[in-house]
Amino acid sequence: VSTYQCAAKSKHPNRKYVQKFDLATVYVSDAQYNRNIFFDTSPQAVRLYLLYNHWFMQMLVYVFIIINLALALFEDPAVVPLPIWATSTIEIICLSAFTVRMVHYAKVIPRDKFWKDPKNICIIVILSFIDLTIYGALKATGYFAIRWSRVLRPLLLVNVTEGRQLRRAFRSIRNALPQISYVFFLFMFSVLVFSLMALKLFGKRGLLTIDGSPYFTNYLDIVFDLYVLVTTANSPDVMMPAYNYSVFFTVFFILYIVINTYTFMSFFLAVVYNNYKKYLKEEVRQLVKARRFKMCRAFSLLQETRGEGGEPVVTQAKWNHLVKLVKPNISIAHRELLWSVLDDQNKGHIGKIAFVQLADLLSIQVITVKSQPHPIQICFPSVYNSSVSRFIRYMVRTRVFVYVYDLIILVNAVFIGLDEENPVVSNAEWGFLALYMLEIILKLYATEPRAFFARHHFWNWFDTIIIVSALFGTIINSALKHSGGYTSRQILDIVFILRVVRLIRLVDSIKRFRAIINTLIKIGPTILTFGQLIVVVYYIFAMVGMELFKGKVQFFEPNSTSPDQEYCGNPLLKGTTFAKLNYCKNNFNNVVSSFIVLLELTVVNQCGFTAVTHVSARIFFVLFHIVVVIIIINIFVAFILEAFLVEYTFDKSDLQTSLEKKIEELELNVQQYVPFGPPIKLFSIASFLIKGLLLFYFPGSRTVDGLLQRMFETDLRHEDFNEEEEPENINFSNPVFDSV
Amino acid sequence: VSTYQCAAKSKHPNRKYVQKFDLATVYVSDAQYNRNIFFDTSPQAVRLYLLYNHWFMQMLVYVFIIINLALALFEDPAVVPLPIWATSTIEIICLSAFTVRMVHYAKVIPRDKFWKDPKNICIIVILSFIDLTIYGALKATGYFAIRWSRVLRPLLLVNVTEGRQLRRAFRSIRNALPQISYVFFLFMFSVLVFSLMALKLFGKRGLLTIDGSPYFTNYLDIVFDLYVLVTTANSPDVMMPAYNYSVFFTVFFILYIVINTYTFMSFFLAVVYNNYKKYLKEEVRQLVKARRFKMCRAFSLLQETRGEGGEPVVTQAKWNHLVKLVKPNISIAHRELLWSVLDDQNKGHIGKIAFVQLADLLSIQVITVKSQPHPIQICFPSVYNSSVSRFIRYMVRTRVFVYVYDLIILVNAVFIGLDEENPVVSNAEWGFLALYMLEIILKLYATEPRAFFARHHFWNWFDTIIIVSALFGTIINSALKHSGGYTSRQILDIVFILRVVRLIRLVDSIKRFRAIINTLIKIGPTILTFGQLIVVVYYIFAMVGMELFKGKVQFFEPNSTSPDQEYCGNPLLKGTTFAKLNYCKNNFNNVVSSFIVLLELTVVNQCGFTAVTHVSARIFFVLFHIVVVIIIINIFVAFILEAFLVEYTFDKSDLQTSLEKKIEELELNVQQYVPFGPPIKLFSIASFLIKGLLLFYFPGSRTVDGLLQRMFETDLRHEDFNEEEEPENINFSNPVFDSV
Repeated sequence: VSTYQCAAKSKHPNRKYVQKFDLATVYVSDAQYNRNIFFDTSPQAVRLYLLYNHWFMQMLVYVFIIINLALALFEDPAVVPLPIWATSTIEIICLSAFTVRMVHYAKVIPRDKFWKDPKNICIIVILSFIDLTIYGALKATGYFAIRWSRVLRPLLLVNVTEGRQLRRAFRSIRNALPQISYVFFLFMFSVLVFSLMALKLFGKRGLLTIDGSPYFTNYLDIVFDLYVLVTTANSPDVMMPAYNYSVFFTVFFILYIVINTYTFMSFFLAVVYNNYKKYLKEEVRQLVKARRFKMCRAFSLLQETRGEGGEPVVTQAKWNHLVKLVKPNISIAHRELLWSVLDDQNKGHIGKIAFVQLADLLSIQVITVKSQPHPIQICFPSVYNSSVSRFIRYMVRTRVFVYVYDLIILVNAVFIGLDEENPVVSNAEWGFLALYMLEIILKLYATEPRAFFARHHFWNWFDTIIIVSALFGTIINSALKHSGGYTSRQILDIVFILRVVRLIRLVDSIKRFRAIINTLIKIGPTILTFGQLIVVVYYIFAMVGMELFKGKVQFFEPNSTSPDQEYCGNPLLKGTTFAKLNYCKNNFNNVVSSFIVLLELTVVNQCGFTAVTHVSARIFFVLFHIVVVIIIINIFVAFILEAFLVEYTFDKSDLQTSLEKKIEELELNVQQYVPFGPPIKLFSIASFLIKGLLLFYFPGSRTVDGLLQRMFETDLRHEDFNEEEEPENINFSNPVFDSV
Repeated sequence: VSTYQCAAKSKHPNRKYVQKFDLATVYVSDAQYNRNIFFDTSPQAVRLYLLYNHWFMQMLVYVFIIINLALALFEDPAVVPLPIWATSTIEIICLSAFTVRMVHYAKVIPRDKFWKDPKNICIIVILSFIDLTIYGALKATGYFAIRWSRVLRPLLLVNVTEGRQLRRAFRSIRNALPQISYVFFLFMFSVLVFSLMALKLFGKRGLLTIDGSPYFTNYLDIVFDLYVLVTTANSPDVMMPAYNYSVFFTVFFILYIVINTYTFMSFFLAVVYNNYKKYLKEEVRQLVKARRFKMCRAFSLLQETRGEGGEPVVTQAKWNHLVKLVKPNISIAHRELLWSVLDDQNKGHIGKIAFVQLADLLSIQVITVKSQPHPIQICFPSVYNSSVSRFIRYMVRTRVFVYVYDLIILVNAVFIGLDEENPVVSNAEWGFLALYMLEIILKLYATEPRAFFARHHFWNWFDTIIIVSALFGTIINSALKHSGGYTSRQILDIVFILRVVRLIRLVDSIKRFRAIINTLIKIGPTILTFGQLIVVVYYIFAMVGMELFKGKVQFFEPNSTSPDQEYCGNPLLKGTTFAKLNYCKNNFNNVVSSFIVLLELTVVNQCGFTAVTHVSARIFFVLFHIVVVIIIINIFVAFILEAFLVEYTFDKSDLQTSLEKKIEELELNVQQYVPFGPPIKLFSIASFLIKGLLLFYFPGSRTVDGLLQRMFETDLRHEDFNEEEEPENINFSNPVFDSV
């Protein structure tokens, strides 16, 4: 910041100039990070807005959200019970923090906009306060009370300004709902008709299920059983009594499975895929539009008219200043590269079209590493340059070195599989550890250490951390063992895990596997958005489930002698398969086991719980299946499908191509900077040397927004954006709670 | 045919002219049906080729294939045992029939081509003969023998000239295999690493599974258990012992499920979708190319040069003659419509470009119905035209009529759900039947009967068949009941099914549902191709499964008193869940139960069978899962996805648009021929009156090839085909067995 103030003082000492740059910086960084807050443009508001967007403030909000969500661990039914006054105090602190954040937000944006939009957060906060008060009062006076506002908590995660991706996902789901619901109603119609037929065909035959109850005699039971068949959970049990009676009845079930389990479920995927993609595309279109609009605003703040005729332009000096403000720690080489991409003809100034591209250019990941000689080379040049040393360095970089270590890993895998109490095996572990340490030391000898540990060298980091931790773990473990008082199974577990994880390195040696892994890693960040989505939905269902089922099923430690153990402490479960299969720990008695049960329900919809409460509790399970399996899992599959197709079939973006072309044009000293034998690059990195700095350029998109934009790039590229026009739907960007 | 001979005689009595038309006809019909046989063009070969393609000959081949496949029902282990001499005789007859067909084929195509291509069928037939002889000899002398050539039988279905679609599907799978295998190996690597970790974490803890066996102590068992977890069959059982021990171990399973069950399975879908689509597109491209090539051949046979300068053209007379030969029962109106589409400027002759379109035009479904007055109107004009009669006819066509009947169906649904032994309910059934009969009679009164029962009026046919059958069934049923000797549960079952099926009519009244159902119906024929694919794969696995597991598991009738009943007649199954859940009928003791077991394995991969044989039998189940679930089911889902997107998003083809434009241009008397209230059209039919004939034109594609072509139309449309060039890959079209 000091450089910038110096520059500002020396050239344009007036206040207005500084404010202008502040505002332009905000516009550019909003465009870069796709923030869509229509802040007040007054200087105070801009200062406040900068503070509002400060990483620390954003992190703080997330910390409070996590604390607020984690309260479920301590509230009744609790994993670790805390008194009500403690949890209430923490909740009040969290709610106050959200209120403060909201007041801050209110100061940033124009007053009329505030009351239009974040009313939802207000409502949640106020409701939580009221609910907390009522609950406290009722509990204090000894009444039965339910904290129903706990269900609303995860919605805070959706509604804070930072939950952009999540909000977008929710909005896409909401928009796709009508189409999904038509297929769903037809599917339900089909299930109802099949159930009616089952009632008529099997109801009067006096068949019995395996536990002796009458088979297919109650219509609602049949509907539920056939619905569960769609989730494949009760196949083939549901069919066995009819099949045992006559082989012809299987035709009914085969038809049912083909139509409902396969065709309709595929239809759901198709409808979700189609609609989700359609709405997401529209969202991305809006996003790109908003970004261009913001960049145009920034341009108009900095523009000046040049000489004859006079198109408005931005000079290199102003641009440099702006880039330094937006990205304070950008290297000079990187900045100059970006400028040379934008200022194609070396005019010293750029027009609007070029300026607008800045936000996209800044999103392309370029890492700078100083190209330096090896420290040993500096200290002992004669040793480092001796023929033996050169041979070692050469050997380390050959493929043979890699193959040898791949072989060592394979042998190690066999040793891991053997019984570790055999002294040969446990001593061999020291040998393997030594070999791995040797590998790292040799590599460090052959490469400059700072280059070896550059941020993008995933596998180098991976290796070093795993090996060093395993070394420490093994030493501690054997020290404990020799001292006699060996009890720590945990350390041994960690050592085992580290040993096995080491094998993953093998994947990196096979080119085809690497391509798949890279695709996985690239879509990783977006999978995290789905993770959030799942957490929100799970949390809501866990809260409801805990109110409905808490304490109904008890888990007894395996060595307990209680007679209740046999039926999970609930006589209603006597003789059920639920108790027989020892599912007692699958309960809603605290938030952790609730989450685990919900995961199990996602995989296969078991629902023994209906036995312990009313039959209508089945609604809970069917609802969960519809929301999680039919909608969210399908969206997840649709997303992976789309992302995979993009990564496999799409080309680089125009901008990336021009960046690469520029690198070639400038005849930069392009080094094939590949530290070791097989290219240990996470992405296909183009590296080049500029002014003594190694720049690593990562093709592909790093962020969720980037990936989404690439998905629809071919469609978006050719659209004619009217860059002056305000984005159509201003509402779309501010935190609006009509999304769920 | 007689008209054609007359025409030929009167105009061009020479033999050559007739032969030319024969050849052209063959080319056009080959193009229309996408037959790709490079037949000899000598007149005798063409005659033989016409016979070869005769529908009766093709049907005969299918009949023999079905008989051959159905032999599995009668061969040991049999559903209905027949002596070996009987089944062998039938098989020899079938194999002789295939040989005859092959000899016929050899006469049709050039000799050198024959020995290049259908060697696979030869091999199958010869092998079957040899196998049959050896088997017969061994059996006769009392040795143990296996009919291993039975596994090859379904491959006949793939390799006969008629199995075009199926062969294409197999070829696409084979081409997609390398890509799928990379993901599969990475997936298996992940399973192996997780298994090793599970062995290290859980193996030494002395945990027990629910049936008391040690938990996760054998590496291969762990691999198998974790593989089955991917199919979700043993969730959450496989996790419970670890979860009961410590909640932290669930992290292992959660990671496993997220990575392997969800991410990798989605990856499989993505890879299958991507590759299957890519190769299918290439196949369709080849198909279109081959079609154009054939049409060009036909054109060059019929062309003549017209006057000045002279582009080669085909005259209307020749064209008419050709169309009559290709499609003998085409109506004059239909033919004239097609000509007017091709001969845009009414020149009386068409060029090559227009001629080539004929094959596509013939594929567009146009149905001709004579527009006639109602028979009652002819017999009793005064009655039919009276105001009462007119009012009835008007009422039948209003929406009110439809709503009233929808309401009746709903009420009927409730009555069906009630106990049919209640006299009120069983008498109400007569009332409902009367109401439905009245509906059909009223509709028949309002519409000309032949129009009402036109081929495309799916729901009219549906209604009539269902109601009339239900009426007969109910009458027979109540006659049997009154005669006292009431035993037939089968008739009652049929009556019940007919009653419930009636409810499906409701779907047709709701527009959104109809759109979904139409999509389903349109992709129906292609789903049948998948049906064949599944039959081929199931048949092979059933044959192998029967050899491996026949007789290992016995089913006892429920009222049997045998003590073996408890463990399915196999002491090895004592106390297993397989026996406890009474899965005894899930066995490989005959081909029907084998198919049912395989279907169950497709839904959820249960494998209790490994208990009765060696552990290595698990390979059978894993292999089945890979082939059917990972590959075929994914292709099925991918296909539905693609077909759905096509039906929902694509426009009509160019040719269909020009056909529709022509209809408007000609100012045909376009009637909105909609017999009843809500458009009872299966597709959105455009109907029009030409020369006293109603023509129904069906947009959308009727055949599998048509649907496929539409899928890739936008890509294919703009390609520049060199129409003279022979299709690149001659082999691709003849029955080649390198497809599996």
